[in-house]
Amino acid sequence: MTAVVRKPFIVVVSGPSGVGKSTVVGGVLERVEGFSRSVSLATRSPRKGEVDGEDYHFVDSEEFGRRREAGELLEWAEVHGNLYGTPLDFVEGKLAGGSCVMLEIDVQGGMDVKGKRPDAVLIFLLPPDFGELERRLRGRGTDDDDVISRRLENARMEMSFYDKYDYVVVNDDIGRCVGDILGIIRSESLRLDRTSVDITY
Amino acid sequence: MTAVVRKPFIVVVSGPSGVGKSTVVGGVLERVEGFSRSVSLATRSPRKGEVDGEDYHFVDSEEFGRRREAGELLEWAEVHGNLYGTPLDFVEGKLAGGSCVMLEIDVQGGMDVKGKRPDAVLIFLLPPDFGELERRLRGRGTDDDDVISRRLENARMEMSFYDKYDYVVVNDDIGRCVGDILGIIRSESLRLDRTSVDITY
Repeated sequence: MTAVVRKPFIVVVSGPSGVGKSTVVGGVLERVEGFSRSVSLATRSPRKGEVDGEDYHFVDSEEFGRRREAGELLEWAEVHGNLYGTPLDFVEGKLAGGSCVMLEIDVQGGMDVKGKRPDAVLIFLLPPDFGELERRLRGRGTDDDDVISRRLENARMEMSFYDKYDYVVVNDDIGRCVGDILGIIRSESLRLDRTSVDITY
Repeated sequence: MTAVVRKPFIVVVSGPSGVGKSTVVGGVLERVEGFSRSVSLATRSPRKGEVDGEDYHFVDSEEFGRRREAGELLEWAEVHGNLYGTPLDFVEGKLAGGSCVMLEIDVQGGMDVKGKRPDAVLIFLLPPDFGELERRLRGRGTDDDDVISRRLENARMEMSFYDKYDYVVVNDDIGRCVGDILGIIRSESLRLDRTSVDITY
């Protein structure tokens, strides 16, 4: 018999605000087995429709600071003055239980994970057209000019990180983009360095 | 606009005789675009049903030696006293034309390619059960004991190379195995190091 065991891994999906990360990640998680989505801590207030414990674990800055100081976060980042982070115990628990973990996080967090977990798979989502992304970011809700220009500046900063990632996927078509990420996941699970093989001759 | 260009690459598929390489590679090539299958040189006689120029380019040892000495082979190997090799000009022409190239070759050749083309993708096919493979190799045609034991010895030698490959795929189900390789191909084309990105802000 050939007994083959595959080691679970972390997948990080990053990309500029407005590129469609949540939709893509949602589409991937619907179609893949053995994957858990990590729910981040966030110090900001819930947006309309967001559910505590599902979209984010909403905590105050003191709680966030305490957990960060205690080394309980795999990664963290500050975006527009708010703090976001991934609970380490969740990720380690899932991996230990044989499940892969999907993190939809910003580039600061992505670089954190890359440093701490070199076996993680980093995927960057690019918009097919930055001008279109800009229009989308400008059009979101009823935000004032300050918020919009901060958002655009941040999107440009995030874009500049694409070449620190392992894979670059363009979100020009949601179906293709989801298929690309499913291909990456399937492929990564087959890598020699994630595989133990025991052959009986 | 985000202009993304992906660089074509070589995919090597190896595995012990009898594992089903040709069937798997055939299934992959039917379902993938932008791929060419390399046709190897071989010094052995055509087997029943094999077509010159399609399954192999059948040449004599002098011709093979001449081309090898002239540096016209990307890789070559000796298997059961016969010589096999991949014409370098075919592979380079296809890559230059934007097409990926699939090589179904033995482990000696695979190691050759790994040394010369570190950007090649090496996939090893494992049988789900070596005992079953052994029975299949014993049962092939009407070969005598010498041929059979040489074949088994060679299969064991080939198996020992799996951990020099990038990916390990078990051929327990042809459909899944083909899907695994399609996933690897899709994924590899999305790697940062095969991608040029030009973003207009």
